[in-house]
Amino acid sequence: MLNFDFKNPTKIIFGKDTIAKLAEEIPSTEKVLLLYGGGSILQNGIYDQVKAALENYDIVEFGGIPANPEYEVLLEALKIIKSEKITYLLAVGGGSVIDGTKFLSSAALYEGDEPWDILAKYIRTEKGMPFGTVLTMPATGSEMNSGAVVTKVATHEKLGMGGPGLFPQFSILDPQVIQSIPKRQLANGITDAFTHVMEQYMTYPTQAKLQDRFAESIMQTLVEVAPTIIENPAYYDAAANYMWCCTMALNGLIQKGVPTDWAIHGIGHELTAMYGIDHARTLAIIAPSHYRYNFESKKEKLAQFGERVWGITTGSTEEKATKAIERMESFFHSLDINTKLSEYTTEFAGTAEKISDRFIQRGWLGLGEHKAVKPDDVVKIVEMSY
Amino acid sequence: MLNFDFKNPTKIIFGKDTIAKLAEEIPSTEKVLLLYGGGSILQNGIYDQVKAALENYDIVEFGGIPANPEYEVLLEALKIIKSEKITYLLAVGGGSVIDGTKFLSSAALYEGDEPWDILAKYIRTEKGMPFGTVLTMPATGSEMNSGAVVTKVATHEKLGMGGPGLFPQFSILDPQVIQSIPKRQLANGITDAFTHVMEQYMTYPTQAKLQDRFAESIMQTLVEVAPTIIENPAYYDAAANYMWCCTMALNGLIQKGVPTDWAIHGIGHELTAMYGIDHARTLAIIAPSHYRYNFESKKEKLAQFGERVWGITTGSTEEKATKAIERMESFFHSLDINTKLSEYTTEFAGTAEKISDRFIQRGWLGLGEHKAVKPDDVVKIVEMSY
Repeated sequence: MLNFDFKNPTKIIFGKDTIAKLAEEIPSTEKVLLLYGGGSILQNGIYDQVKAALENYDIVEFGGIPANPEYEVLLEALKIIKSEKITYLLAVGGGSVIDGTKFLSSAALYEGDEPWDILAKYIRTEKGMPFGTVLTMPATGSEMNSGAVVTKVATHEKLGMGGPGLFPQFSILDPQVIQSIPKRQLANGITDAFTHVMEQYMTYPTQAKLQDRFAESIMQTLVEVAPTIIENPAYYDAAANYMWCCTMALNGLIQKGVPTDWAIHGIGHELTAMYGIDHARTLAIIAPSHYRYNFESKKEKLAQFGERVWGITTGSTEEKATKAIERMESFFHSLDINTKLSEYTTEFAGTAEKISDRFIQRGWLGLGEHKAVKPDDVVKIVEMSY
Repeated sequence: MLNFDFKNPTKIIFGKDTIAKLAEEIPSTEKVLLLYGGGSILQNGIYDQVKAALENYDIVEFGGIPANPEYEVLLEALKIIKSEKITYLLAVGGGSVIDGTKFLSSAALYEGDEPWDILAKYIRTEKGMPFGTVLTMPATGSEMNSGAVVTKVATHEKLGMGGPGLFPQFSILDPQVIQSIPKRQLANGITDAFTHVMEQYMTYPTQAKLQDRFAESIMQTLVEVAPTIIENPAYYDAAANYMWCCTMALNGLIQKGVPTDWAIHGIGHELTAMYGIDHARTLAIIAPSHYRYNFESKKEKLAQFGERVWGITTGSTEEKATKAIERMESFFHSLDINTKLSEYTTEFAGTAEKISDRFIQRGWLGLGEHKAVKPDDVVKIVEMSY
């Protein structure tokens, strides 16, 4: 087991009708900026629940944060934070709104001239403006971690940021919110959370037995509840398991003491940038090829994944590993998630080289747990996913 | 799944040679009281590591905190905190030293006349004097939770306390510390942690699928590493898994959203009070009888435990449940832990009634997840364990 530090101070308030508890978490003297996305909360009743819970608060609102939160839009919110002397941020949304709020938390207290530097110059946020979240779409885990990804439209850059100052003070997780989420987004959320776990798990055995089992626990549970989530998101217990799995998949716990991969995300982000394919679907496109291409270095762990998550008990290590990849693909297909790039676009010629070139330009010369996935390997992995 | 709140802000610093990082966690301006127990840290090198790490600090020392930390002893430490104007507490020890330090953290800022009231009047600690820990004996999980148990020798009372102010600011977990722990104590630690998980798991199915699997993961891992821990505690990877399992067993995570039992601890504490039997061993005495006596209400979960932790795949629910209890007993026996009261004392006549009478006096009229274990049931459970 590798050495690690772990600290996660976010308070989780989980369960039925918990949005009503908002006022217990935000001091009534705060001036609150309520941030949200495209407006679905105005239709599904969540906005009304939030406003009812914060009836006597001084609240300013900022809606319209897009998926892949855009720097240009967030700068408008930053102006409001300054002009209105906001002291507390409340994100009501999914990963994009929460990530955007994290940027604002950092930028609100940033003393430099150019807030983009927080991302461009990898400035760690030690202290941000306090913020909480009401999660409306389980998937990214942003509600209980300190990382965010922000996109600058002007330069087509999508960069990460983070730091101990960016944990939400609290996050309210009411599993009932998923009832109004379209099937397509639910399938994306399940795929995203599942792949988050895989990136922290599918490397090589390191004797981190508890971390492995926790990772497998999350995947087993996602696989078990997935059909119910898609068919009947109003079934509370399935929704609760799904929501808690998504949070536990990326709150830092399962990555502690183990090597992590993240090559699938690295490559997948480019497919979103190039073709606008949903983030989760890009992961489902790349993951099978990545594991097949790096089969030799991952086969022991793939076999363990096959045994424990998919119940494959017979065959050699290689046979179990091969079947495990097939079962993972079938799982994505069962969610109506396609796993080949050609199923999303007909104009994919040259994609592999383009991605590889971008990585070379950025100096990304070795991805994965061994930093052994070179630009040439990226070409082959992407080609295998056509 | 039940509604829950979860917040655990303790920073864990885990791994080889991490005691050297102490100075990164305690501001150098603090005046530190270093608290420890019977002095084993003076022999095994941990004291020297701590002193080397805090070379330039202003440190006062207080040793001699006994197992089951005693109020009377802790009051002596409290005097030193006040007379020496201590600002930071550092516990170097196992659960007893850490629990004693939690009491001191609370008492140091308590404004009442009688610190025992914190326990006797169940006063929740919202804010304590800051403290950190260096864990020398994995078992209780106190290094990452906000609870403590303190004993008043004068009145034979053993009471609990807690509150959000009592999370350690940090805990250093170096698995190498277990090398010098006697086998008997290692066996106790494994049994203690295993039973902690059982108390939060062995109730009835509630569709909290992820929590169940996390609990099972901890137990599977403890079972897997136990023989190595006993035979070769210097084997680092086993030690690391054991240590992390003990922390995860009682840091709050697996109890969230599920009913919990804790009847075994309630009854077991009395056996320690009456006969001085090691805490963990009292749990091993009571657990099998408790599960056999309450078989009907727990059999579904016992069968799940049998399937998932012990690999019992054939038979009816009742058969799997019965075998699961037997396998748990065998596991305790494999650690050289006896599971019958008569193996610890010949003078056990009347024990069951005495415990039941104490519970009646205290108003403990219903234990367990359904509050259905009445004093009469306690008599029968204890008699079954003779």
